[in-house]
Amino acid sequence: MSRSPPAASDRGLEIERIKARLKSQVIETPSWGYANSGTRFGAFRQPGAAVTIAEKLADAGQVHRLTGVAPKVAMHVLWDLPDEAALEGVPAAAAEAGVRVGSINPNVFQHQSYKLGSFCSPWAAARAATVQHCLDCIAIADAVGSKVLSIWLADGTNYPGQDSFTARKRRLEEGLGAVYQAMPADMLMLVEYKLFEPGFYMTDLCDWGQSALLCRRLGPQAKVLVDLGHHAQGVNIEHIVSTLVDEQLLGGFHFNNRKYADDDLVVGAINPYEFFLIYNELAAAEEDPERAIPVEYMVDQSHNLKLKIPAMVQTIMNIQTAYAKALLVNRPALAAAQDAGDVLAGELELVSAYETDVRPLLAVVREEMGLAPDPLAAYLASGYQERIEAERGERTGSGGLGA
Amino acid sequence: MSRSPPAASDRGLEIERIKARLKSQVIETPSWGYANSGTRFGAFRQPGAAVTIAEKLADAGQVHRLTGVAPKVAMHVLWDLPDEAALEGVPAAAAEAGVRVGSINPNVFQHQSYKLGSFCSPWAAARAATVQHCLDCIAIADAVGSKVLSIWLADGTNYPGQDSFTARKRRLEEGLGAVYQAMPADMLMLVEYKLFEPGFYMTDLCDWGQSALLCRRLGPQAKVLVDLGHHAQGVNIEHIVSTLVDEQLLGGFHFNNRKYADDDLVVGAINPYEFFLIYNELAAAEEDPERAIPVEYMVDQSHNLKLKIPAMVQTIMNIQTAYAKALLVNRPALAAAQDAGDVLAGELELVSAYETDVRPLLAVVREEMGLAPDPLAAYLASGYQERIEAERGERTGSGGLGA
Amino acid sequence: MSRSPPAASDRGLEIERIKARLKSQVIETPSWGYANSGTRFGAFRQPGAAVTIAEKLADAGQVHRLTGVAPKVAMHVLWDLPDEAALEGVPAAAAEAGVRVGSINPNVFQHQSYKLGSFCSPWAAARAATVQHCLDCIAIADAVGSKVLSIWLADGTNYPGQDSFTARKRRLEEGLGAVYQAMPADMLMLVEYKLFEPGFYMTDLCDWGQSALLCRRLGPQAKVLVDLGHHAQGVNIEHIVSTLVDEQLLGGFHFNNRKYADDDLVVGAINPYEFFLIYNELAAAEEDPERAIPVEYMVDQSHNLKLKIPAMVQTIMNIQTAYAKALLVNRPALAAAQDAGDVLAGELELVSAYETDVRPLLAVVREEMGLAPDPLAAYLASGYQERIEAERGERTGSGGLGA
Amino acid sequence: MSRSPPAASDRGLEIERIKARLKSQVIETPSWGYANSGTRFGAFRQPGAAVTIAEKLADAGQVHRLTGVAPKVAMHVLWDLPDEAALEGVPAAAAEAGVRVGSINPNVFQHQSYKLGSFCSPWAAARAATVQHCLDCIAIADAVGSKVLSIWLADGTNYPGQDSFTARKRRLEEGLGAVYQAMPADMLMLVEYKLFEPGFYMTDLCDWGQSALLCRRLGPQAKVLVDLGHHAQGVNIEHIVSTLVDEQLLGGFHFNNRKYADDDLVVGAINPYEFFLIYNELAAAEEDPERAIPVEYMVDQSHNLKLKIPAMVQTIMNIQTAYAKALLVNRPALAAAQDAGDVLAGELELVSAYETDVRPLLAVVREEMGLAPDPLAAYLASGYQERIEAERGERTGSGGLGA
Repeated sequence: MSRSPPAASDRGLEIERIKARLKSQVIETPSWGYANSGTRFGAFRQPGAAVTIAEKLADAGQVHRLTGVAPKVAMHVLWDLPDEAALEGVPAAAAEAGVRVGSINPNVFQHQSYKLGSFCSPWAAARAATVQHCLDCIAIADAVGSKVLSIWLADGTNYPGQDSFTARKRRLEEGLGAVYQAMPADMLMLVEYKLFEPGFYMTDLCDWGQSALLCRRLGPQAKVLVDLGHHAQGVNIEHIVSTLVDEQLLGGFHFNNRKYADDDLVVGAINPYEFFLIYNELAAAEEDPERAIPVEYMVDQSHNLKLKIPAMVQTIMNIQTAYAKALLVNRPALAAAQDAGDVLAGELELVSAYETDVRPLLAVVREEMGLAPDPLAAYLASGYQERIEAERGERTGSGGLGA
Repeated sequence: MSRSPPAASDRGLEIERIKARLKSQVIETPSWGYANSGTRFGAFRQPGAAVTIAEKLADAGQVHRLTGVAPKVAMHVLWDLPDEAALEGVPAAAAEAGVRVGSINPNVFQHQSYKLGSFCSPWAAARAATVQHCLDCIAIADAVGSKVLSIWLADGTNYPGQDSFTARKRRLEEGLGAVYQAMPADMLMLVEYKLFEPGFYMTDLCDWGQSALLCRRLGPQAKVLVDLGHHAQGVNIEHIVSTLVDEQLLGGFHFNNRKYADDDLVVGAINPYEFFLIYNELAAAEEDPERAIPVEYMVDQSHNLKLKIPAMVQTIMNIQTAYAKALLVNRPALAAAQDAGDVLAGELELVSAYETDVRPLLAVVREEMGLAPDPLAAYLASGYQERIEAERGERTGSGGLGA
Repeated sequence: MSRSPPAASDRGLEIERIKARLKSQVIETPSWGYANSGTRFGAFRQPGAAVTIAEKLADAGQVHRLTGVAPKVAMHVLWDLPDEAALEGVPAAAAEAGVRVGSINPNVFQHQSYKLGSFCSPWAAARAATVQHCLDCIAIADAVGSKVLSIWLADGTNYPGQDSFTARKRRLEEGLGAVYQAMPADMLMLVEYKLFEPGFYMTDLCDWGQSALLCRRLGPQAKVLVDLGHHAQGVNIEHIVSTLVDEQLLGGFHFNNRKYADDDLVVGAINPYEFFLIYNELAAAEEDPERAIPVEYMVDQSHNLKLKIPAMVQTIMNIQTAYAKALLVNRPALAAAQDAGDVLAGELELVSAYETDVRPLLAVVREEMGLAPDPLAAYLASGYQERIEAERGERTGSGGLGA
Repeated sequence: MSRSPPAASDRGLEIERIKARLKSQVIETPSWGYANSGTRFGAFRQPGAAVTIAEKLADAGQVHRLTGVAPKVAMHVLWDLPDEAALEGVPAAAAEAGVRVGSINPNVFQHQSYKLGSFCSPWAAARAATVQHCLDCIAIADAVGSKVLSIWLADGTNYPGQDSFTARKRRLEEGLGAVYQAMPADMLMLVEYKLFEPGFYMTDLCDWGQSALLCRRLGPQAKVLVDLGHHAQGVNIEHIVSTLVDEQLLGGFHFNNRKYADDDLVVGAINPYEFFLIYNELAAAEEDPERAIPVEYMVDQSHNLKLKIPAMVQTIMNIQTAYAKALLVNRPALAAAQDAGDVLAGELELVSAYETDVRPLLAVVREEMGLAPDPLAAYLASGYQERIEAERGERTGSGGLGA
């Protein structure tokens, strides 16, 4: 066993490179992360929580203003855009908030007609409504300048025998195929998977393998979306990420964290080392011309107990922490240890980067970006929270259909 | 290895004994199983779903009329008894429906004040409200003739550091201790546990060990409640049941089934052999004077995709199936194989009972009870479903606070 | 909701068809299932356990003689064929035992050189040895008349950073690609996957998605092998099976059962309903000309506590039970319920078949095949066990390298 | 939300206190961690791996010499002390190696007679042998100056019906009760639990609840042992630790880490934040006079791929890292945030300590103890590895019965 040498003499140049990459991060936060939400046992209302899309964009803008790396906002069509007026106001509201629209998320699970599924439903009317809604979403994306259609399906079944796996699979291939064909050539379709919930016996797209085969069938504009909370216990997510990268099938992430199921906690809050290991794969791929493909980094969280905006700021900071540590990995030394079969030396290259306290580095990065070194403290001192609590008060809705 | 002999010559007597035990089953169905419900992604409304407590009791009465073994109805105080009037009407409504009130279930999770917990909350006001609500529930139980207080807590935390495990434990011991002290001498307190949800980092009563130690501390009127969907993957539930029986700590069940988490599917729908193995322990304990203790058999399910009443009838039938098969186990032969260390022979005693088709036996039992041999077919032919759909229509509420 | 009608009037014809399919089953048992084995905490020796390949074939022959559906025997090259002499004796020994050689299983995990993997090892010498051993196995397959090369890899890593996921993936594609190219045109390569063990941080082929993408890359002679014990908790295996069928990627099974991890218990012993649901997919595919593809049904179990041969007989009987119940499913009625979106009715079609006691049917099938109706009883009465215990005694080896 | 103030002005005093506690740590390493080991798929032999107890003690001494906090060595009676001579040589060998004997571990799982269990076996002879072996271990402990009897049982069953849960439970209570009664008044019995393996259907002591109830029954000298790899997926171990502390039932740990099952990886290697959270509970308890009880900190790992001694040094360093970070937690600020119900502020108190790079602090601690600041580098430079490889060579045994 050998251990890597101390930092190379040209570490200074490398630090500049690392800082540059940290500054160029682009993270998308979700509109629904600023609205009231809860579990099936009830939702706890927060004073100041956003209800309208303008409020959600404003709050997202506040997060971007503090962190500098969250310029995009995901929109959930039915929740955010209940009518034409809402849609028409989006570009101006986004501009005013200093953000832009990111992915467009169809909602084909909430209406009563989706009781047995959307694309996979045995009911032809539900399937037709699904396709139509997704076509509408493409038009909406066009209207608001989004190039990403992000597909999460609640399709699944609750009981053995409820429906035919094969029939459902073929309905999905046909329906999503029609949507894919309708996309403009510069639009990306992200295909998410999830082990379970709300289907409790099976989920039609239950794992990355299902999404991968479906994307291969659809075409090169379809890529897999990895939500960190959608796997069975024990699954090695960083390995999946690496595989999708190598197969040119990785499209994006829904960042969050879980201990049990789809818990939607702040990313990195439960297992920060795992999150670092995922970013380690991403950072390695970025540096490899053969594997560098565009990836959408999106947050999918909504907080019941924490205040919405501080929790989102914390989320962005956790992402920066993981990325910064991944960028510190000495890749030549890592590769050398791996090639030599030196198990401990290879591990220690990762551990050494992970154990580094990157808070000072990130403070410098932020200051060089003209930001406060501690965005969370800056938020708490900004008065924004007090203002929205006073202006908006405590309301029960969350906007759109989910109201 | 030896195998058990064919059925003993006195198998006839034994069948009569088995039939008698099947007829004497007492199962409690939940009022909330007749009302609209859903997942956090939305609820699908059913035409005819009950909203008022009178409707819920009527539907439960229908299930009992068809099955003959479901005479009790669990009540969720806030959902079922929003005011004095509702409470006062319960005895008459129950009598008219041909059922009686079973367990009383406090609700100390839905109100905004319970955001950080009930008994375990760091907020003194929330803790005081919790104790007061439970004392009210004791009074309600008294008013409606119930002798069972069934405690499920949503208490838990979402993040490391959110609260002190120890402080929360001691608050729980103190608060629940006060409630325990207020119970009349003939009242039973059931203490449920659950691995996770809605707490996603920890649950204060996360497993049977927590409930068992707490019951030991409270006193002999406190017993553990086992919900079949509240365990980590892989946990051997029948072993827990056996341990609780031997420790005189088993108080009751919430029957349902799951594949992933707390899925609340029809009991026996995902793993019927596991359910048989649980009943195998219960049937064995019933026959052992040293271990026979009263157990509350309660259903805790609410169905989104299946019609409420047929799903509940199916549930009762699945319970009867598991119990009937467990009663068929040749216990002397099983014990002989086990004592001899004959692994395969012991297993085959259980398998032999399980593989038996008990539908004919259950049809006979029902006919001897004056019931239709197939309660599900009888329900479908009864016109009840059509009647409630016409009379009640499709409504959005589920009664009480949950409305 | 409607329920399926009672059995059609032409049920008689259908029963003949079912019996014919039950008689034509072909199951492969593993040579290593007849030899001493154990856990990492020790192995318990059984008197009479097979050591030589001739003994293993003889024992497999005994299982086939009793069940009539187990004519094939899987061979593990290093364990069964330590030298040329062993190999040369196989055809005659198999013929004498009344069985034929099934799949050939390379062993690229036991030798010290495979410490860091086989195809995926960073050590070029290990990779070269792996390819050479697999080429040897192709030659051995040719020599013994086998047309199936069954690949299970122990490749994986124990620690983050130990090796590069991508490098390992590419080494595997290259090495297995070379083996694939060397196969004769009528040989099938089965590619198994496993979540973990002996790799405890990652497994290179960790799930069906990895195997599926690899098979697609290799070519049409490569298919996925599903071992029932190799999934994360909660994974819906019947859904995977259905997907692989529809993608023309299903190659075969390793039957066994587990409660926790890769427990290698008798198939159907822990969750027989799940096993029925898997066979339900297989039976449905068999009846669909579009989806009917050849599948290798192989047992992968080795028993420590149960006697080897009775456990294997029980295994075959459990497979027959699952298959018989799956054949009883009323597929037109099931499809009708599913198309109507009748969740309960669809489920009840499966439950009705599953609840049927098929032991009488299987007894008839066996008698029509000239066999004893209860193969297990027949084995116990045969004197075979007493004979091998007397002749072979208690030995410590298990043959070949594993000795 | 408020955030804790910067470090108090008396941080200097606190650092001295932290350093003192780090210096006073006492960790026990296992004799079997220095010997060859493996998985059920084979063991990879290491040149220089210890075989005799003298070699194991020497290697443990080397680890202690480098780290200063590992003065105790756990012994596995059958593996380490195959005969009287081995036993008699232990005190001198330990003294020469600079270590002392820690816990004594009976082995009641490896002999053929334990096929169906030890204390729980249906075979009276096996039970009697178990009790006798444990009584012998008490005598051995006396002979070598150990005060800790550490009980891990492989007892469990593989199949439903194999044995009676209740009968096994009562046999265990009786047998272990007899051993307990024979212990001198200053001896501690640690009672370990494990979810599964080698039992694959049930384990008699499957979780902390089983061990806790058993310890309560045995008496105050019996305490629960927590092995970090012995839980179901998702279980919150730090919560269990906290509960056991509060119940005065915590006796000790077997440190290791896992991603899947009982993987026995280096502690902290897979989820270092979880390990920190466990130490956070321990550090908090140490500071609370009411909850401070003695705890045995033991490592239970054996490495196949990493070199034995460096892996053990890394293990000790990981423990120090977790402990140091836990000592850095600002407990008054944490308590204040928790009392205020400030979820995010409470969490950030832990995160802030965890994110601190404690390598410089630990280097100072080591230097003040007269040690090299980096024990791993010191080992690699020491020549010890080269010497044992040359002197001992590559051997197949691991000592004693396990040879």
